Amino acid sequence: MKIVIVGAGALGRLFGALLAKGGEDVWFVELDREVVAAINEKGIGVTVHENVAPEKIDYYPARATDSGGSIAACDLLVMAVKSYHVYEAILGVAHLVTDASPVVALLNGLGHLEVMGRVVERKNIIAGFTNMAATALGPGLVVNDGAGKTKIGEYDGTISPRLQKISGMLNKCAIETEPVQDIISRMWCKVIVHAAINSVSAVVRQRNGHLIEGLESISLLKRLVDEGEEIADACGIVLGTTDLYAMLLATCRRTFNHLSPMLQDIINQRKTEVDALNGILYRYGKRNGVAADTHQTMFELIKIMEMSYGMVDEKEERF
Amino acid sequence: MKIVIVGAGALGRLFGALLAKGGEDVWFVELDREVVAAINEKGIGVTVHENVAPEKIDYYPARATDSGGSIAACDLLVMAVKSYHVYEAILGVAHLVTDASPVVALLNGLGHLEVMGRVVERKNIIAGFTNMAATALGPGLVVNDGAGKTKIGEYDGTISPRLQKISGMLNKCAIETEPVQDIISRMWCKVIVHAAINSVSAVVRQRNGHLIEGLESISLLKRLVDEGEEIADACGIVLGTTDLYAMLLATCRRTFNHLSPMLQDIINQRKTEVDALNGILYRYGKRNGVAADTHQTMFELIKIMEMSYGMVDEKEERF
Repeated sequence: MKIVIVGAGALGRLFGALLAKGGEDVWFVELDREVVAAINEKGIGVTVHENVAPEKIDYYPARATDSGGSIAACDLLVMAVKSYHVYEAILGVAHLVTDASPVVALLNGLGHLEVMGRVVERKNIIAGFTNMAATALGPGLVVNDGAGKTKIGEYDGTISPRLQKISGMLNKCAIETEPVQDIISRMWCKVIVHAAINSVSAVVRQRNGHLIEGLESISLLKRLVDEGEEIADACGIVLGTTDLYAMLLATCRRTFNHLSPMLQDIINQRKTEVDALNGILYRYGKRNGVAADTHQTMFELIKIMEMSYGMVDEKEERF
Repeated sequence: MKIVIVGAGALGRLFGALLAKGGEDVWFVELDREVVAAINEKGIGVTVHENVAPEKIDYYPARATDSGGSIAACDLLVMAVKSYHVYEAILGVAHLVTDASPVVALLNGLGHLEVMGRVVERKNIIAGFTNMAATALGPGLVVNDGAGKTKIGEYDGTISPRLQKISGMLNKCAIETEPVQDIISRMWCKVIVHAAINSVSAVVRQRNGHLIEGLESISLLKRLVDEGEEIADACGIVLGTTDLYAMLLATCRRTFNHLSPMLQDIINQRKTEVDALNGILYRYGKRNGVAADTHQTMFELIKIMEMSYGMVDEKEERF
């Protein structure tokens, strides 16, 4: 199967390497020319930790280009870019998305399906998310940080033949995948939990596990989860019986010593995905009559922190 | 007039020095024995900036003790401790507060009048606040950071003879003081504006002036002011025609390059006064049926940051 992966970041590389290892024909569309050159020269390298000896790195063949227009056709696309790049990314490969070649969206947060739906036909988009973890290392390498399930689903909730086919292919390539009927609801659950953990950890600069040790922190996380559930409800999303606060506690415990992705972005002075997490939640809330003040506050604080990146050195000198 | 100043921090020292310079008999009650010893040895030293030559520092006579119980009587008390020390502080000097010797409360925030009212008679408490600025320097020195008006007022709104007498005495000592009828309303205005500026500046680590440069920051400050006004209204406080958002903008512009006191506390890993600012506002709000989520969120974030003080070095090493 010829598979085009849009975005050769950490997750895109890990997917690509596993697909190539499984015998699929993997192509990348990636704007970073250094990454494109590295992949075209050696393929995708995968390690299990960052200090592995060079001779122990396995490479898997793949092709890469910085222009989706140079690819004429494919059987499947996988969208694996940062949420704030999804519009430019889908524009560049829109001609490849057809009835016969749907696009699986594996982005964080919410809102990207609507953005993609303005460019390609909604019925050709398969929603999904993955709990696999990966860290990019140099232009063409990736650290496989651990397995995690991938869920994919159709908008209309059916377990369609194409969903089964894609799921079967991914499982064959050791990407543990489950086709589900309620993908949108599951995405909302994940977004609510991660918007709470990521934003609080990033603002107070704490590891995930420490967030559930103090009364004020627990109160804040609980309010973010409650507000998220209220917003989902106002948007007509049925979250079912999932206890999101229990999910949050389990996530913080399982990732006790991790720095959340948003905290890593803040520390490295990179743009965060807060727009697709707290930002989209509070906007959906306000649009549907829910006062989402807590998500809005966390969103605004992260935005202020992003805007102060250039000023930090000057300030820290003076402090 | 024999005046007992409770708390020989920066503001207490500046008040004491000006009162002593004006010819009053100044006594301090202060728990820090190093400060007590320094004052008893040389009096209070006042400079205009921190690098002034030692021979250019003026000293004013004062007495200090770490036990209020050792003072038998006085004509007036001035409470100048941090808001979170007010309960222990008023207990130690309660015997000195009488009809003839009221206590002027010059603390930041709200809530301290209720705390003091549980220990001494409410009619013997005069409320107030000052915009004078001072920085403590060593155990007995203070930098006079600039003049600012002091307002004092009776609970019942009258301009009583004792209010006029105290005000006259303070003005004679170059502490520019105005007796006002609406001191509680003015305290609320100050608290709402400072709770907004201090908490946001402390969380995002920005100077006051930068807070009014970004859209998200302005949105957040405006929501904190609006929520504060709603809380005041629910508590039956008449804020009058004061435009608090304009007051906030003017404050941020006037103090453009300042680090807010709460940001200074966070940087120096000290306890902040957030309980008497955002903390009391959100509690008053909830008690009176106002959902004060934004103040609660800022309060909780500052509390989480305070609790992480011990952990910061360990983390910054690893980051």
